[in-house]
Amino acid sequence: MLSERALPPQPSLPERRRGGRARRAAGGAGATKAGLVLRRIPTYELLGEEALLALEEQADWILSEIGIEFRGDAEARRLFAAAGCSVEGDRVRFQPGQATALCATAPAEFTLHARDPHYSVALGGDHLVLMPGYGSPFVTDLDRGRRYATIEDFRNFVKLAWMSPWLHHSGGTVCEPTDIPVNKRHLDMVHAHLTLSAKPFMGSVTAPERAADSIEMSRIAFGADFVAENAVMQGNINVNSPLVFDETMSGALRTYAEAGQCVCVSPAIFGGAMGPVTPAAVAAQTHAEAMAGIALAQLARPGCPIVYGSFHNTMSLKTGSLTFGSPEANLVTLVLGQLARRLDVPVRSGGGQITSANSADGQAMADSTSAMWATLLSGANQVWHAAGWLEGGLTMGYEKFVMDLDQCGAMLRMIEGMEVNAGTLTPESYREAGPGENFLSTRHTLQHFATANFIPDISEGGAFERWAEDGCRTVEERANDRWKAMLSAYEPPPIDPGVDEALTEFVARRKAAMGDDWY
Amino acid sequence: MLSERALPPQPSLPERRRGGRARRAAGGAGATKAGLVLRRIPTYELLGEEALLALEEQADWILSEIGIEFRGDAEARRLFAAAGCSVEGDRVRFQPGQATALCATAPAEFTLHARDPHYSVALGGDHLVLMPGYGSPFVTDLDRGRRYATIEDFRNFVKLAWMSPWLHHSGGTVCEPTDIPVNKRHLDMVHAHLTLSAKPFMGSVTAPERAADSIEMSRIAFGADFVAENAVMQGNINVNSPLVFDETMSGALRTYAEAGQCVCVSPAIFGGAMGPVTPAAVAAQTHAEAMAGIALAQLARPGCPIVYGSFHNTMSLKTGSLTFGSPEANLVTLVLGQLARRLDVPVRSGGGQITSANSADGQAMADSTSAMWATLLSGANQVWHAAGWLEGGLTMGYEKFVMDLDQCGAMLRMIEGMEVNAGTLTPESYREAGPGENFLSTRHTLQHFATANFIPDISEGGAFERWAEDGCRTVEERANDRWKAMLSAYEPPPIDPGVDEALTEFVARRKAAMGDDWY
Repeated sequence: MLSERALPPQPSLPERRRGGRARRAAGGAGATKAGLVLRRIPTYELLGEEALLALEEQADWILSEIGIEFRGDAEARRLFAAAGCSVEGDRVRFQPGQATALCATAPAEFTLHARDPHYSVALGGDHLVLMPGYGSPFVTDLDRGRRYATIEDFRNFVKLAWMSPWLHHSGGTVCEPTDIPVNKRHLDMVHAHLTLSAKPFMGSVTAPERAADSIEMSRIAFGADFVAENAVMQGNINVNSPLVFDETMSGALRTYAEAGQCVCVSPAIFGGAMGPVTPAAVAAQTHAEAMAGIALAQLARPGCPIVYGSFHNTMSLKTGSLTFGSPEANLVTLVLGQLARRLDVPVRSGGGQITSANSADGQAMADSTSAMWATLLSGANQVWHAAGWLEGGLTMGYEKFVMDLDQCGAMLRMIEGMEVNAGTLTPESYREAGPGENFLSTRHTLQHFATANFIPDISEGGAFERWAEDGCRTVEERANDRWKAMLSAYEPPPIDPGVDEALTEFVARRKAAMGDDWY
Repeated sequence: MLSERALPPQPSLPERRRGGRARRAAGGAGATKAGLVLRRIPTYELLGEEALLALEEQADWILSEIGIEFRGDAEARRLFAAAGCSVEGDRVRFQPGQATALCATAPAEFTLHARDPHYSVALGGDHLVLMPGYGSPFVTDLDRGRRYATIEDFRNFVKLAWMSPWLHHSGGTVCEPTDIPVNKRHLDMVHAHLTLSAKPFMGSVTAPERAADSIEMSRIAFGADFVAENAVMQGNINVNSPLVFDETMSGALRTYAEAGQCVCVSPAIFGGAMGPVTPAAVAAQTHAEAMAGIALAQLARPGCPIVYGSFHNTMSLKTGSLTFGSPEANLVTLVLGQLARRLDVPVRSGGGQITSANSADGQAMADSTSAMWATLLSGANQVWHAAGWLEGGLTMGYEKFVMDLDQCGAMLRMIEGMEVNAGTLTPESYREAGPGENFLSTRHTLQHFATANFIPDISEGGAFERWAEDGCRTVEERANDRWKAMLSAYEPPPIDPGVDEALTEFVARRKAAMGDDWY
């Protein structure tokens, strides 16, 4: 554990230091930079053995007695039947323990390669990967207000994620580029991830052919041989909860899995609507649905990299609106980390910096911070929605994004833990500065003062009078300055000109081969 | 653990239900109301045995090699010398292990009695007591801005704390009534706590005679015989860190201890200034200073109730300003919970909902929420500054206060944990609503929907359009409505007219006996 480390890089320009795998053994200060990050504090074990067994038994009961439907995907059902599951119509049922057994070929840890190997990440074990929000149709900022997202917004968020040392992954649909026809969006999105960033990313899953395009573009960037043997991309497979995989999702799941690319299986349960209203039931059902999807991926290609995902929240059953960062949802987040660890697979938390607030106000940050604590203490390996999320995910906020970055940096500092040794206990300082004396001028303080504490970008304290003279600016107003400054300073990562050209050509060719569809 | 419980009371009027001790055995829904509250989730154990031992050894080393000064308090030094400590001038040194041994008579758990026994609380074990902020010279609200606090503000915060089911204690100097002469403030403050609220409170410590007045007023309210045998009041003893108790504090400490009233010993270490800059050193030094104060209380009256306190934060060593809710400070908070548990004494966390932000913006709530997670997972028994704190404690915010109340309620829900049993797993619901079906109309959902989730007062989500129609009001603006509505609805708790009269008479008599001092 590190508490005296090199100053974390301030997020003005992305890290360019090379090193790749070497950093893993080295650990140390590099571990706080983009790329490999290790959680060095214990996970929080909310439930004991008896309660965890009860949840696992309930998941097994759901999969054996109720079963789960793979609608419209005969190949998926064929794979399950061949593995010994009972298949009636769309319904697949597992014997107790069978889903767990089918998940056993999933790797406990794997590398998700980035175009620049410096930014490759490990998923699983004590590794942590933070990512931007996902899927918002709207964006907002203090200047222009809330509006439909465009490809320009998409590119802006890819740039901001690239520039932050606190995000380790470029994300997927960081916002919906609603000015691009639906059937062509994936081309522009993957192109942006592959050219404006060099961090890992997620490809399209909205149709099997779009998943295939995403993989094809990866082959251009990484080389087909490399992609055949390595995970360079992730696809998000949302379960159509309760207990249904639709054809689009299970098809995309198989496309990614067969290509050896990473599938993240994310049940999406709003307690009370897509499942019972209690946290325990939401946890058990999530476990059942996640195992079923992981089992399908393993049947499609044994050993293919997967991530145990979740997306769960609560509803204000008074008003019917969804709530995020609620205590009940945070309890589920903590428990899903425990269940995934027992399955020995990498876990994507259903948490992140999430909120139902409509603006980046105090509620937004309280919800987000609370969800993020549950997320990180749950032992999550991958955190979607770590930056930008507002309004239950309907909106990506520019200011919220950089406010969240400060919190990501602080949480990354926290998971380094507390180092206890003679160097940090510094008994010699008490001989320099005794009772009633000031430690500011001790050698230890002078040596460490610049690097001892995490330094946020836009959080601030200090004299009220100075703050008032500066116009009583809230953190949201300071964030407005910050994202603009970041975008002004943006520089794209280097790319092989041949690859750049081939990607552009591929996008143009595929677009030319299709009409514009808006659904 | 409870996840299906009665709807927590909405904070409009205080709970009046009687029951006192009986509720303790009963537990259940009552446990979320004012009075006795139990943490039903595990503590978070950040450090392992080896690191904890190293911190304890460092604390012992500080107390034996460096020592700690009790300046101007010959009686304190006499007590330590009589107990076998080495005393040279003001400096007291303990043999290794001696401070721990002197703390052994401190009770692991005790009752802090409230004027209305329904609101009596337990300190220690798994009990949790949340309190308002403490000590701010300023207050702020959206209407009038930041200004010096007055006795009217003080009374307002006592009323708000009384009305909230999420605060279990009326606090102490919830803000400084700067319009009252310094030497008379304690009379008006204790009077407000004893008449406007019926929850436990803190008395004055700013001079031994003020501590004595506080105790005398308690005797009027509770009866002298009861006060002689029971803790009805707490005093906050701030260590003049590093390693100094000044005469005012050690004198007040002895006054409270001798009267059998509760002393909370709070080292106050700004890492880098009042101690070394590393979290490990801050934790070890806090432990040393807290043990020394607790030891003195036990020497003054063996078995007297004490609380192991702390107040620690980080500094932005770039700008020199204090920072709150920082990851380094949160790590210390977590570890101090571990150290206090090993000493087997009740612990007051140095956390709470604290921030250095100058307004109740997103940073304020992110800092506060982060600190509160560390605080509650540390196993803290008592949380000061759980509501209202802004600007590093210089200001109590009316809006921040009620925003924090929502977070207190959410955290109190979280510490109830997740109940896992047939009633919460509800397998029968999956027979009612199978794959692809909606659980909203299942019997289980209908039965539990109104009470399943914590319902905040002013946090909200819901349709952006409706929110925009309502004027895009932030949570801070909604909070402004909320505290005004609460104050309008305030009703004082019942009080025996004779007691009321005697308290008023005591205050008038003491005030008449003094001139006005403003220092």
